[in-house]
Amino acid sequence: MSYKLKEIADEINGILFGPPEFEVSGINTPNLAKNTDICIVFEPKFLSIAEKGDAGAIILKEGLTTFKPYMSVKNPRAIMPKLLKLFEEKKKYKGIHMTAIIGENCTIPKSCYIGPYVVIGDNARLGERVVVMAGVKIGDNVTIGDDSIIGYNVIIDSYSIIGKRVKIQAGSVIGKEGFGFQKDGNHYIRIPHLGNIIIEDDVEIGANCVIDRATLGSTIVKRGTKIDSLVIVAHNVKIGEDVAIAGQTGIAGSVEIGNRCMFGGQVGVADHIKVGDETVAMAQTGVIGDIPPKSVISGTPARPHKEWLKAQATLLRLPDLIKRFKKGNGETDNS
Amino acid sequence: MSYKLKEIADEINGILFGPPEFEVSGINTPNLAKNTDICIVFEPKFLSIAEKGDAGAIILKEGLTTFKPYMSVKNPRAIMPKLLKLFEEKKKYKGIHMTAIIGENCTIPKSCYIGPYVVIGDNARLGERVVVMAGVKIGDNVTIGDDSIIGYNVIIDSYSIIGKRVKIQAGSVIGKEGFGFQKDGNHYIRIPHLGNIIIEDDVEIGANCVIDRATLGSTIVKRGTKIDSLVIVAHNVKIGEDVAIAGQTGIAGSVEIGNRCMFGGQVGVADHIKVGDETVAMAQTGVIGDIPPKSVISGTPARPHKEWLKAQATLLRLPDLIKRFKKGNGETDNS
Amino acid sequence: MSYKLKEIADEINGILFGPPEFEVSGINTPNLAKNTDICIVFEPKFLSIAEKGDAGAIILKEGLTTFKPYMSVKNPRAIMPKLLKLFEEKKKYKGIHMTAIIGENCTIPKSCYIGPYVVIGDNARLGERVVVMAGVKIGDNVTIGDDSIIGYNVIIDSYSIIGKRVKIQAGSVIGKEGFGFQKDGNHYIRIPHLGNIIIEDDVEIGANCVIDRATLGSTIVKRGTKIDSLVIVAHNVKIGEDVAIAGQTGIAGSVEIGNRCMFGGQVGVADHIKVGDETVAMAQTGVIGDIPPKSVISGTPARPHKEWLKAQATLLRLPDLIKRFKKGNGETDNS
Repeated sequence: MSYKLKEIADEINGILFGPPEFEVSGINTPNLAKNTDICIVFEPKFLSIAEKGDAGAIILKEGLTTFKPYMSVKNPRAIMPKLLKLFEEKKKYKGIHMTAIIGENCTIPKSCYIGPYVVIGDNARLGERVVVMAGVKIGDNVTIGDDSIIGYNVIIDSYSIIGKRVKIQAGSVIGKEGFGFQKDGNHYIRIPHLGNIIIEDDVEIGANCVIDRATLGSTIVKRGTKIDSLVIVAHNVKIGEDVAIAGQTGIAGSVEIGNRCMFGGQVGVADHIKVGDETVAMAQTGVIGDIPPKSVISGTPARPHKEWLKAQATLLRLPDLIKRFKKGNGETDNS
Repeated sequence: MSYKLKEIADEINGILFGPPEFEVSGINTPNLAKNTDICIVFEPKFLSIAEKGDAGAIILKEGLTTFKPYMSVKNPRAIMPKLLKLFEEKKKYKGIHMTAIIGENCTIPKSCYIGPYVVIGDNARLGERVVVMAGVKIGDNVTIGDDSIIGYNVIIDSYSIIGKRVKIQAGSVIGKEGFGFQKDGNHYIRIPHLGNIIIEDDVEIGANCVIDRATLGSTIVKRGTKIDSLVIVAHNVKIGEDVAIAGQTGIAGSVEIGNRCMFGGQVGVADHIKVGDETVAMAQTGVIGDIPPKSVISGTPARPHKEWLKAQATLLRLPDLIKRFKKGNGETDNS
Repeated sequence: MSYKLKEIADEINGILFGPPEFEVSGINTPNLAKNTDICIVFEPKFLSIAEKGDAGAIILKEGLTTFKPYMSVKNPRAIMPKLLKLFEEKKKYKGIHMTAIIGENCTIPKSCYIGPYVVIGDNARLGERVVVMAGVKIGDNVTIGDDSIIGYNVIIDSYSIIGKRVKIQAGSVIGKEGFGFQKDGNHYIRIPHLGNIIIEDDVEIGANCVIDRATLGSTIVKRGTKIDSLVIVAHNVKIGEDVAIAGQTGIAGSVEIGNRCMFGGQVGVADHIKVGDETVAMAQTGVIGDIPPKSVISGTPARPHKEWLKAQATLLRLPDLIKRFKKGNGETDNS
C-alpha cells in the first residue's frame, strides 16, 4: 500500500503543506517513522521528535508548522481511525475450510469464511461476509449478522443471537450457563438456564471474556457497546447502547446498565443493581447500590468521585490530625 | 416438551388451582410468557405483570391468589431447579467423533461422548456417560468420573483427577504448572511442578478459569464446591466442601479455605492464608491474614464486615467532622 | 527416574549424611513422601513430620540433623528448581502432527513439535526445538525463538515476535487488537492496530492472559519477566526485565513498567503511567499516577505501603476516636 500525500489529505480532510505527489507507504510513531512513512504528532512537544527523526511527512494540529511535508487537521486523534484504516492489511478471508464441521440445516452464504477446525451445530444462520476464525465452536440455532467477525477459539453457545458488524475476539465464551444455584441444606443445586444471549449490532467484545445466557429470557448487550478483555457479564444482565467497559470488570446477575456509560478496568457491580445512563465508574469501583444517571463514581462502596477523592486525601492526613486533636483535647499521644 | 399442570404441580410439590389437564409447553418470565407458557412470580409486586401478560399459568408463593390458573408453593425460588429442568433441552451427546485423537491405553466407555477435534493423551480413564465437548485437550494419565461434562476447548493437564458429576465450562485450564519461581540474583528460575490437581464429585467450574496443579502433592477442590468464571486457584490450594466462589476471584498459592464458605466476586486471598469454615467474604475483599470460622468480612485488608461498613461511613463524614473539631480545637480551617 | 543420594547431593551442592548408594525414585512433601522418596524440610517445625513419615531421605537446612539419611544445604528453597527438575517427566515432543495446517513459506526445523489441530499462517519462522501444543492458532509472519513452548489453544496473532525459551501457557491470547476506539458523537469508532508485540527471551506468560499488540510500534515484554494467569497487558505497554506480575493484574494502555518490579495479584495500572524500577505493588493496588523507582505501594489510589497501612489502621479506630473527641469538644454523641 502506498498513498500520495494529496490522497491522504483528502481522506482525513487535512490541509496539505508539501508535495501532493509525494508517496508514503507506511505509518508509524514520530520516533520510529522512516522516510517512507507518515506520522502523527498528538502533542506540540512531540513535534521536535518527528523533525529529528526520518518521517517523510507529518500530520499536525492546526496552527503548528514544520519544515517537513505536513498536513494540518483540526483534531489529530479524531482522524486516527480513518488514517490507520488506509494502511491496515486487509486479509481476504473467504470460503469454508474442508476441516470445518457444520451441522444440519445451516445457512452460510458463499461470502462467509469458516476457518479450519471450526465446529458449528444445527440450524445456524449466518449473514453475508461473516468471518469465523479457526477453532471456533458454535452450538445449535445460533444467528450471526452480516460482517461480524468471530475470533479464534471463541465459543458461542446454542440459541445466541449476534447482530451485524459484531467483533468477538479470541477465546471469549458467549452464552454459556450462568452461575446460578439454589441452596438445598448445605448443597448447591444447579438452576438450568433456558434463556439466551442477544448481542446487538456494532458491539465489540475483547478476548477471553465470559458472557452468560439468561436463566429465562435474554441477557442483552445493546448496539454499539464496546467491552474489553477478561470481562464477565453474568446471566440476565442488560447493558445499554454505546457503553464502554474496560478490562477485568465484572457485572453480576440481573444488573441493568444504561446507555453511554463508561466503566474503567476491574470495576465490580453487585447483582440486581441499576446503573443510570451516562454514568462514569472509575477503575476498581465496587458498585453495591443503584446509581442515578450521569454519576461519576469511584471507591468501594461506590460514591461520587469527588467525595471519594476528598475522603482518601483526608484519610492520609488522619494520623497527623489525630495527634493535633489529642493535644487540643488534653489527651496524651499514646494511641 | 409439554406438561399438564397437574404433572408440574406433582413435580414441584405445588397445590394446583386451575385445570389439571391444561398443558403448557414452555416457561418464561412474567412479562415474556405466552399463553402456552407457565411463569414464576418471585415477589408479590410482580403478580400484576404476570396477570396483565399472556402467561397461561402462574406459580405463586403460598397465600397469593390470581384469576389465572396457578399453583401455590412454599418457596418459589426453591423449586426453580426442578421446574426449569422439566423444560431443559436434553441434547443427547454420544459416541466418539472420528476426528478425536486418543492416546494409548485409554479406557473410554461406550456411553461417553468425545466431540470433534478433541485430543486425549495416554492412559486416560473415563467413567460412564462422560461428555467431552469439541476442542478439549486432555494430557496423559487423567481420570474423569461418571457423568462429568467437560466444556468446549477446556484444557486438562496430565495426572489430573476429576470426580463424578463435575462440570467444567468452556475454556478453563485445569492442572497447569503454577506461578512458582525461585529468585537467583535478579533472575527468576522456574520451579517444576510435579504435583497434580484433584477435583472432587459435584464440583462445578466456570469458563476461562485457571486452576494450577501442586508443586508437590495435590491442589484440591472438594465435593460440591461451585466456582464461577475467570477465577484463579493457584498451586497447592485446598478448597473445602460446598464452597461458592464468584467470578474473578483469585486464591493465591497454598491457601486453605474451609467448608461452606461464600466468596463474592473479585475477592483476593494472599498466599498461605487459612480461611475458616463458613466464612463469607464480600466482593472485592482482600484477605491478607488468617480468618476464623464463620467470619463475615470485607475491605482490604479484610476485617469484620460491620466494622468495615462503619469505618467507610465515618470516612465519608470525616471532612466535615474535621472542620467541626478544628473549630472546637481553636484552630483555623486552612487544612 | 531414580537417583543415588550422592548424585542428588552433587546436583544440589549438598553435604550428604547417609548411604551414598541409596536410591530414591521420587520427591514429595514431608507428610506424603514414601520410603522411596526424598523430601525437603523448609522449616525446622516440619522436621518431625518428615521423621514420623515414611520419607526415605530428607533435605535439611545446614545445622539441622536427623536419624534418617539426609543432606544439608544452605537454602532449601533455593535448590528446589534443580531438585524438582531431576524428577520432572520430560515428555519428548517431536514431529509435525499430520493434522497441523501450516501456511506458505514457513521455516520449521525438524527439532520442533507441532501438535494436532494447530493452525499456522504464512511466513512463520520457528527456532530449534520449539514446542507448539495442540489447538494453537498462529497468524502470519510470526517469529518464535529456540526452545520456546506454546501451550494448548494459545492464540498468537500476526507479526508477533517471540524470543527464546519463552513459555506461554494454555489459552492465552497474544498480539490481538487492543481496546482502542475514537469517540464520534455518541458512537465509538475502532482504531485499527498496525503495531505488533515483542516478547523477549526467557519470558513466561500464564494461562488465559490477554496481551495486546500496539496501535503503532510494539508492545514489549522484556527479558526474563514472568507473568501469571488472567493478566491483561494492553496496547503499547512496555514492561521491563525480570519483572514478576501476579494473577488478574491489569496494565492499561501505554504504561511503562521498569525493571525488576514485583506486582501482587489484581493490581490495576491506569493508562500512560510510568512505574519506576524495582517498585513493589501489593495485591489490589490501584496505580493512577507515576511511581518513582524502588517504591513499595498499596491501596487505591496507590501510596507508600507503610502510610497506607497506618491510614487503614487509623480508619478502623476512627469511630471510637470521634466519640472521644466529641466529648472533649463539648458535643453530644448523636452523630
